[in-house]
Amino acid sequence: MDMTALNNLLQPKSVAIVGASTQPGKIGYTVIENLIKGGYKGKIYPINPTATEILSLPVFPTIGAVPGDIDLAVITVPVKFTAKVIEECGQKGIKALSVITSGFSEVGRQDLENEILEIARHYGMCILGPNIVGTLSNSDKLNASFAPFLPFPGSATLITQSGALLIAMDAITYTRKVGFDKMISIGNMADVNFADLITWLDKDDNTSCICLYIEGLKDGRRFIEACRKTQKPIIALKSGVSAHGAAAAASHTGSLAGAVKVYGAAFQQAGVVQASDLNNLFDRTLALSLQPPLRKENLLVITNGGGVGVLATDAAERFGIPLKFAPEDVQEELKKHMPEFGSAKNPVDLTGMAGNEWYYKSVKYAFAHPWTDGLVVLYCETAMTNPVEIAQAIKKAVDEAGIKDRPVLVSMVGGKRCDEAMQWLVENGIPAYPAPDQAMNSMAALREYNNIRLMNVGADESCGPKSSKRAREIIAEARADGRGSLTEIEAKKVFAAYGLPVTEINLAKSEDEAANLANNTGYPVVMKVVSPDIIHKSDAGGVKVNVKDEAGVRAAYQTILDNCKAYKADADIRGIAVQEMAPLGTEVIVGSINDPTFGPTVMFGLGGIFVEVLKDVTFRVAPVNKEQVAQMINEIRSVAILAGARGEAPRDRAALTDLLCRYAGMVYDLRDEVAETDANPVLVYEEGHGLKVVDARIILKKL
Amino acid sequence: MDMTALNNLLQPKSVAIVGASTQPGKIGYTVIENLIKGGYKGKIYPINPTATEILSLPVFPTIGAVPGDIDLAVITVPVKFTAKVIEECGQKGIKALSVITSGFSEVGRQDLENEILEIARHYGMCILGPNIVGTLSNSDKLNASFAPFLPFPGSATLITQSGALLIAMDAITYTRKVGFDKMISIGNMADVNFADLITWLDKDDNTSCICLYIEGLKDGRRFIEACRKTQKPIIALKSGVSAHGAAAAASHTGSLAGAVKVYGAAFQQAGVVQASDLNNLFDRTLALSLQPPLRKENLLVITNGGGVGVLATDAAERFGIPLKFAPEDVQEELKKHMPEFGSAKNPVDLTGMAGNEWYYKSVKYAFAHPWTDGLVVLYCETAMTNPVEIAQAIKKAVDEAGIKDRPVLVSMVGGKRCDEAMQWLVENGIPAYPAPDQAMNSMAALREYNNIRLMNVGADESCGPKSSKRAREIIAEARADGRGSLTEIEAKKVFAAYGLPVTEINLAKSEDEAANLANNTGYPVVMKVVSPDIIHKSDAGGVKVNVKDEAGVRAAYQTILDNCKAYKADADIRGIAVQEMAPLGTEVIVGSINDPTFGPTVMFGLGGIFVEVLKDVTFRVAPVNKEQVAQMINEIRSVAILAGARGEAPRDRAALTDLLCRYAGMVYDLRDEVAETDANPVLVYEEGHGLKVVDARIILKKL
Repeated sequence: MDMTALNNLLQPKSVAIVGASTQPGKIGYTVIENLIKGGYKGKIYPINPTATEILSLPVFPTIGAVPGDIDLAVITVPVKFTAKVIEECGQKGIKALSVITSGFSEVGRQDLENEILEIARHYGMCILGPNIVGTLSNSDKLNASFAPFLPFPGSATLITQSGALLIAMDAITYTRKVGFDKMISIGNMADVNFADLITWLDKDDNTSCICLYIEGLKDGRRFIEACRKTQKPIIALKSGVSAHGAAAAASHTGSLAGAVKVYGAAFQQAGVVQASDLNNLFDRTLALSLQPPLRKENLLVITNGGGVGVLATDAAERFGIPLKFAPEDVQEELKKHMPEFGSAKNPVDLTGMAGNEWYYKSVKYAFAHPWTDGLVVLYCETAMTNPVEIAQAIKKAVDEAGIKDRPVLVSMVGGKRCDEAMQWLVENGIPAYPAPDQAMNSMAALREYNNIRLMNVGADESCGPKSSKRAREIIAEARADGRGSLTEIEAKKVFAAYGLPVTEINLAKSEDEAANLANNTGYPVVMKVVSPDIIHKSDAGGVKVNVKDEAGVRAAYQTILDNCKAYKADADIRGIAVQEMAPLGTEVIVGSINDPTFGPTVMFGLGGIFVEVLKDVTFRVAPVNKEQVAQMINEIRSVAILAGARGEAPRDRAALTDLLCRYAGMVYDLRDEVAETDANPVLVYEEGHGLKVVDARIILKKL
Repeated sequence: MDMTALNNLLQPKSVAIVGASTQPGKIGYTVIENLIKGGYKGKIYPINPTATEILSLPVFPTIGAVPGDIDLAVITVPVKFTAKVIEECGQKGIKALSVITSGFSEVGRQDLENEILEIARHYGMCILGPNIVGTLSNSDKLNASFAPFLPFPGSATLITQSGALLIAMDAITYTRKVGFDKMISIGNMADVNFADLITWLDKDDNTSCICLYIEGLKDGRRFIEACRKTQKPIIALKSGVSAHGAAAAASHTGSLAGAVKVYGAAFQQAGVVQASDLNNLFDRTLALSLQPPLRKENLLVITNGGGVGVLATDAAERFGIPLKFAPEDVQEELKKHMPEFGSAKNPVDLTGMAGNEWYYKSVKYAFAHPWTDGLVVLYCETAMTNPVEIAQAIKKAVDEAGIKDRPVLVSMVGGKRCDEAMQWLVENGIPAYPAPDQAMNSMAALREYNNIRLMNVGADESCGPKSSKRAREIIAEARADGRGSLTEIEAKKVFAAYGLPVTEINLAKSEDEAANLANNTGYPVVMKVVSPDIIHKSDAGGVKVNVKDEAGVRAAYQTILDNCKAYKADADIRGIAVQEMAPLGTEVIVGSINDPTFGPTVMFGLGGIFVEVLKDVTFRVAPVNKEQVAQMINEIRSVAILAGARGEAPRDRAALTDLLCRYAGMVYDLRDEVAETDANPVLVYEEGHGLKVVDARIILKKL
């Protein structure tokens, strides 16, 4: 995407409205009205073939008739005229189009969308939309949309896939007092997508936080890349998480994947903080747009009420930042600013007697103290104190503490007077919330932002091998054989080619060959019939485990053959696989799917019941780095098993980490060939003793 | 509690303020000011030994000097004078005291609290508090508190243990537009407690929903009983869930208990809906106070915007009411009130073009249709339609549909105009929320209320045996022996006395006796040394499993003796236990603790890793009925195991249900004797094959 075209789109010096209307209420009228009302300082050119004047502005019959340059054309003509007017825009040399008109791919007319895109490409124009509300920018006093006013001013920028929600959120910014600089309706994303806008906004001085409402991404990997390169916090609300149709899944991993899990993994890897709902999006945006990240865990809470203090304590634990007591010296100092029945522990309870002065002194001291990594100040309405004065005392204390790199959030609980005080705080750069839970959740967002930033350092470097010629040869042979999946033996060869420790497995076509293979592999071995006609090998008597010596191998070879012939006389028996028998270990499952949005992903979970009953698995978009894998392993609920449950020694996490890195590297490398894979089970041994992939499955992409 | 005393407390015809002050800002002045400002129609008697007039009211030097009867005395004198003035109130014949004064048990002066309680008891007076803000009632225009105004009018009643939070919530009722009739500060609960007030409020015509802020209950069982008898919805926010000190726990069950889990169980059994935080308490109170319960699962959503529709769909799934498509006939009819690109599925999307008429027609039709069990109507601000008119159309449609026994909730997303429209709706009896998630969560509260009401029908009837003389004899013997816990053999006898299927276990003191016992029990058996000196029996070679015949028993007897003597020459060996060897089955754990608040509770979880790693257990206050047990079993995350994971046959749930009922009956019956118990493991077999308690543990109460 050409960034200068986006300059024209988002900071135009002149705007043409193609489809300008003389009729109030029509979008072609409203956009002009909004540009004027918003105080836009650039040139406004209404384009309409018959009108002469709209809202005192001279009207031009065509784009070509406009004398000067035009940075941005806002298209509001009916869908059938869009191609024609976009062609004219191209001829005029316009570089940016904001296509409000609807009736394209959202109603099944992908063809019309392709048509305008082709014209735009031909002339080097970018298209925002189609099917959008438009763009709004406080810093440019630009309301090039049919949303009725610019948002409450601030430094967040919203990009939304729902235009209706833009209009609603725009209005909510005033009641919630969460400030935005820009609001961008992204619509059908025929051309300009999230990644393009995020990249542009990273350089926008007026944006401190990027706020996303996402229904569905088109190119997940470009999104991740763009987010990762951004120096600003990004927060996303992903909707439609329940609507993800369960695509027919051929592998175990496939059946465990879902939009929520894969999107969640992608957001984490992209360094994007998530919001759980619309209110939460506002809460977290407010904190992320005004405050620095929470870099460590020492969170101090100062309150004037035990009740809200307890609610904050509960919330802190719920959101993963349990409160700790401050050191003795901090407690001693704070004791000076409260009555005897107050508490200098955490929460610091100044009691309901706390006035401006106590708040001022305790906040100033506590925030400046090196122990404090972040501060939450609570006020519970007493009807005796004045919330606005308390707010001013807090602000003064924070300013005088001189701390810029640690976050402070406020919650004032109690109706209108508190709301006014909080509005004053927000306007002065301190996020404030009507309930302590909201402040704590927003503090958790500042911590999440810090943690995912750290985790993604160097994230694009996979720790596994980059490619394998041998793997591609094996796949090519299977394809040549007309198969859509690999045999276990082939799959293990592919795994081995990427350095994954698989149990050795070889095909014996005779008793002697079986004996030789077993002697080379080492005892005990497992023997299994290989036949496309025998699916349930055990039922057919086609499996022997724990075969301990050559005599046993020879006997088992014959027994298996006899059993299988008895089971199905005309079975096509290709031979008998002789496999290394892995010692018992902790079962885990590793797998991958090729997600339609994000491409190759890697999955991890504990095997058996944990996967089957609890669906306790976690995903990452491949490739991954070691930090991401460490986090991935910690994410499963049953992770304690790996630390050695029920008196067992800890499992070999280093080997598991290496396996996941290599696995992710493998599925990323083979993304053009492989649809789904499973390594199930993988047996993980005690620390220092590694692991073994016991069974392997690779399903190929349909080409 | 004498309910007429509560009438005097909550609906007084006359109020004396003992400790009335002439000084604005003092509580003794503020309460009088608030009574007058609130418009109280009864008599107000300021009591002050020196003043003559306060706020134009004549002042009496003592309570005794007041000529007429006094229903309620509000005590605001300093703590040192409280006993004296309460004595005078008693002499005057006052029946209700609201003790605002603080400085009692909350600062460690339990003695002063006992003193005033004694005086009150002597005169048959009830005490609300001490250490409270007072009481507020819109229906009586009574603001007998130092909270500055009566709450926004409505039909919920708040009882709160935090007075500070009362003042804050009072103010919030105006900004949130959640209406309350009464607000009651309950303070230290020296006398009047939650149970008393709940029982009284159940008969209060002005209260439709009881809203609780609970820090800690004193008598959990009276609370449960009172709630269960109430015909009105009760909602509670329990704070301090993270602060529960981990009491030293002697049993496995003890270590798994916690305030959250036990309170959660108690609320469920009491039929109390829970709120997750302060905002949620307001949201859910609004719905429960204005709407009937959601009796079945067919929830229909009508919206004008895809975005908010998707958010509502996500929320519905998150809160446990996944949306289903309406039947064809409903869809066909609804199709008439939307453009072609709308959707009659669920959510029904009228599109942004929807005006008043479409809302009116579709809401009226859909709400009246028998398929619809509940309705959520969404509006996303379009800036083209008028939210107040939409709200009026919705209200008209709901009224004309004539449905009174199904709930309807509204969410209007979009700033000030929506807020005004929602206020109008709330004032007209329809709860409305600024975000779709809040409406969905509140609908879930209406469903939870319905479900827990049903679940608790007949809940006070335990399904197990009511008492056991034999069990008490065994316990008495152990106590006589100076022990604080029972041996495994004794514990199993107690279990068996309540009809629990335990593995048979007997003590043999000779080889012959062992052989006889084993012959009676049936083979195979397990043999274990019984010695207070040998804790780790296996390490000492003191255990033999799978002993298959008499010869084996005799050999094992000698081997165990020899091993144990070798292990510890001077060990006091009491004999060797001969135990039935239970076949393998699915391991579960059952246990109990005697909770300080709620008394005997019963715990259930799946054994082994599920308990140890995942802490996947659930509690109920004992006794329980079969419906509660069914719910309890379904609550654990790993419940699918019981349905037969990994190809196994389903486990015997009927036997498990019976066991839990009996177990709960047992620990309830023995609540005066038993502190903690474990049945761990219990092996559950295939359907129809029952279960066996393999190990038993009973720890006695310290008497």
